[in-house]
Amino acid sequence: MTLKLRTPIIIINFKTYAEATGKKAIALAKQAERVSHETNAHIVVAPQFVDIAAVAEAVGIPIFAQHIDPIKPGSSTGHVLAESVKEAGAVGTLINHSERQLKLADIDAVVKLANEKDLISCVCTNNPAVSAAVAYLHPDIISIEPPELIGSGVAVSKAKPEEVTRTIELVRKVNSHAVILCGAGISHGEDVAVALKLRTQGVLVASAIVKAKDPYSVMREFADATKQ
Amino acid sequence: MTLKLRTPIIIINFKTYAEATGKKAIALAKQAERVSHETNAHIVVAPQFVDIAAVAEAVGIPIFAQHIDPIKPGSSTGHVLAESVKEAGAVGTLINHSERQLKLADIDAVVKLANEKDLISCVCTNNPAVSAAVAYLHPDIISIEPPELIGSGVAVSKAKPEEVTRTIELVRKVNSHAVILCGAGISHGEDVAVALKLRTQGVLVASAIVKAKDPYSVMREFADATKQ
Amino acid sequence: MTLKLRTPIIIINFKTYAEATGKKAIALAKQAERVSHETNAHIVVAPQFVDIAAVAEAVGIPIFAQHIDPIKPGSSTGHVLAESVKEAGAVGTLINHSERQLKLADIDAVVKLANEKDLISCVCTNNPAVSAAVAYLHPDIISIEPPELIGSGVAVSKAKPEEVTRTIELVRKVNSHAVILCGAGISHGEDVAVALKLRTQGVLVASAIVKAKDPYSVMREFADATKQ
Amino acid sequence: MTLKLRTPIIIINFKTYAEATGKKAIALAKQAERVSHETNAHIVVAPQFVDIAAVAEAVGIPIFAQHIDPIKPGSSTGHVLAESVKEAGAVGTLINHSERQLKLADIDAVVKLANEKDLISCVCTNNPAVSAAVAYLHPDIISIEPPELIGSGVAVSKAKPEEVTRTIELVRKVNSHAVILCGAGISHGEDVAVALKLRTQGVLVASAIVKAKDPYSVMREFADATKQ
Repeated sequence: MTLKLRTPIIIINFKTYAEATGKKAIALAKQAERVSHETNAHIVVAPQFVDIAAVAEAVGIPIFAQHIDPIKPGSSTGHVLAESVKEAGAVGTLINHSERQLKLADIDAVVKLANEKDLISCVCTNNPAVSAAVAYLHPDIISIEPPELIGSGVAVSKAKPEEVTRTIELVRKVNSHAVILCGAGISHGEDVAVALKLRTQGVLVASAIVKAKDPYSVMREFADATKQ
Repeated sequence: MTLKLRTPIIIINFKTYAEATGKKAIALAKQAERVSHETNAHIVVAPQFVDIAAVAEAVGIPIFAQHIDPIKPGSSTGHVLAESVKEAGAVGTLINHSERQLKLADIDAVVKLANEKDLISCVCTNNPAVSAAVAYLHPDIISIEPPELIGSGVAVSKAKPEEVTRTIELVRKVNSHAVILCGAGISHGEDVAVALKLRTQGVLVASAIVKAKDPYSVMREFADATKQ
Repeated sequence: MTLKLRTPIIIINFKTYAEATGKKAIALAKQAERVSHETNAHIVVAPQFVDIAAVAEAVGIPIFAQHIDPIKPGSSTGHVLAESVKEAGAVGTLINHSERQLKLADIDAVVKLANEKDLISCVCTNNPAVSAAVAYLHPDIISIEPPELIGSGVAVSKAKPEEVTRTIELVRKVNSHAVILCGAGISHGEDVAVALKLRTQGVLVASAIVKAKDPYSVMREFADATKQ
Repeated sequence: MTLKLRTPIIIINFKTYAEATGKKAIALAKQAERVSHETNAHIVVAPQFVDIAAVAEAVGIPIFAQHIDPIKPGSSTGHVLAESVKEAGAVGTLINHSERQLKLADIDAVVKLANEKDLISCVCTNNPAVSAAVAYLHPDIISIEPPELIGSGVAVSKAKPEEVTRTIELVRKVNSHAVILCGAGISHGEDVAVALKLRTQGVLVASAIVKAKDPYSVMREFADATKQ
């Protein structure tokens, strides 16, 4: 990967939220950039495919795609080419998000593809054993998100600290390099702080920021929490 | 749909070809626009999701997405929202391309969604009976592409004229409005001419243009064929 | 198809209910057979793949598979071959059940395959337009089941009579032969009676029978309702 | 698992071959049983879902399903329930065969489900890294089958011995218990012998036996090779 990953890292997944589509995606990314500049926190945004280029033009913070397909250039109408998200300005991609899961062989293929194309690979996982499995495929980032907590407002770092700890323990047995994040339910600065205390290297967040009345404040709170 | 569909129409599917990704997508779209202006032919381009916004900014001819998902704004990481392609400048979308097939209930849902969002819906089909089935879902355009001919260089209008004729016959029994196109293997101006003689209202093309040494000449040839 | 379809017909989908697996599938099928003999009602059972052969050996009433794949004999590990369900004793198959939906081109392929193999094809649909679309693929049976009513205990024939009527109207425009059933929420004999009054030719049912305390009584009630 | 896995093991995948469907599945399983008795080799057969019960009744050798779904009893029309294959007589199941691949989270779920239901889990993998990933999910058996060699007649043990060796090396770092098999292209007794010399504990085979003119002889050759 080109980008030197600094940690702790906050990845904001814009999902397909109305509040983070088109012009609103740009506005949100600009707020994220402002927080990043004010706090020196490492914030990444993951907008929809269609918005990557415009967001990349508008802000200087790193951008991830939400998914890429295990394909080479060619006849794959309606699929997402690594080359296209890269040329548009993405420096990495989410892979296997719980809302866009892949077959195991495809996760392997996409991680390799991202590596070839110099894109940071962030594979999402649903439990410690699956995280350890993924560790063997050598992605740059592994992010554990128990699906039952996604969008719940109950932070994985609080509700299931042992899942987070166990993930780190299992992953580290086979992979000393991957950055380990946790996600799902992260709603307050304190949740971020707890996640870092558990020795994760950051968080993957979505609704708590994107659907907030004042996303700037929430991002600022999260960013500050990474600085304590 | 906002756009008044004029016929005959030529839809150029950029697929995920390297020759039609990023800056090359813009360059190709500009050539298509030039041909459109020179000949007054009705040409639509369907670039990759990531390139829609930049192509829309660069050219004035209509742009289609290659696919949209049957989703509302919300939690659908890695999926393609109708609202996002529309805001980026697309006026329509391919649906159920043979390289991105959908479940039947999802085709129905996406056609309705496109209609709600004022996007032109172009459903791809693989044979006359399936075309007639799709006619009942009331898309704006139905494009028959026998999969065995896609990319073959053998035009459906020449190899299987009876499939084209039969498609028109079956579709017209239940749907008098849908524009009917044919695709697969269209390689020469003559293929386009034959397609129109068979009473289709245009063609869906890809490799013959995108992978041509001189795409401008091929597009010009196709456009001229629609004017005879 | 070999079997002459008599109507009205009651198809009992065993799904993957514990109450209809293995020996319990045989017991349930025997009760269905008893009701069929007592009332002369036309009852079909659709057990799990694994149970088809044993059920076929145990009872004389017709048996449907719950799904078959669009494949020829060959290298399709873990898929369901038309030939295998036929040899085991099935005389037909459900296709595109809302819990096992297929791509449109695959529905077309499976209907043709069933026809070639002399299996009765019963395609499930979710609304009138999709039913009409399917009518063009010429299955033997079309069964409309609005997904929001499946397992709800609220019968489609009561909650959405206009959907049923509209389905019949649209299907009959293009297909005069297909048997038209409705399903979803059918819980009482009266629901069956209403379905038939709406001019459907039978019902597709599951939980109301399989999960009943006394499946025999419910089947008997349904069967009697088809005889009024 | 109930069955004590003896090694070396030969698993014969019947796929959806015509030569291994219905009565022919039973005949083939009987030949496998005969070889098993004659040589004391440990032979497992994996027939189609529909044929499991009849094969189980006909032979005493262990039977695997070709796939099970990550579901509990309930509303999953057309899916394969662990309970159903178990009650029919299967003692294990293939999982994630290259012709029936699963999402990573589903492999994890199915391995756990198999374990709960006392079914032997045999996860198929496509390369050493993916095999190591799977090792962390603790299946009973891991079988590496490079997809490009499946059905090729070129044995993985000969064409890619380093893939096999590397798989064993990586898997053993995290999992000392899993039985490791290799498959793809195994055509002669010598291929089996080489596989075992590479320290695998058996083979997963299909076409070489099922499509042989004389399956008995091939099975006998393979079985003898495990005895040297």
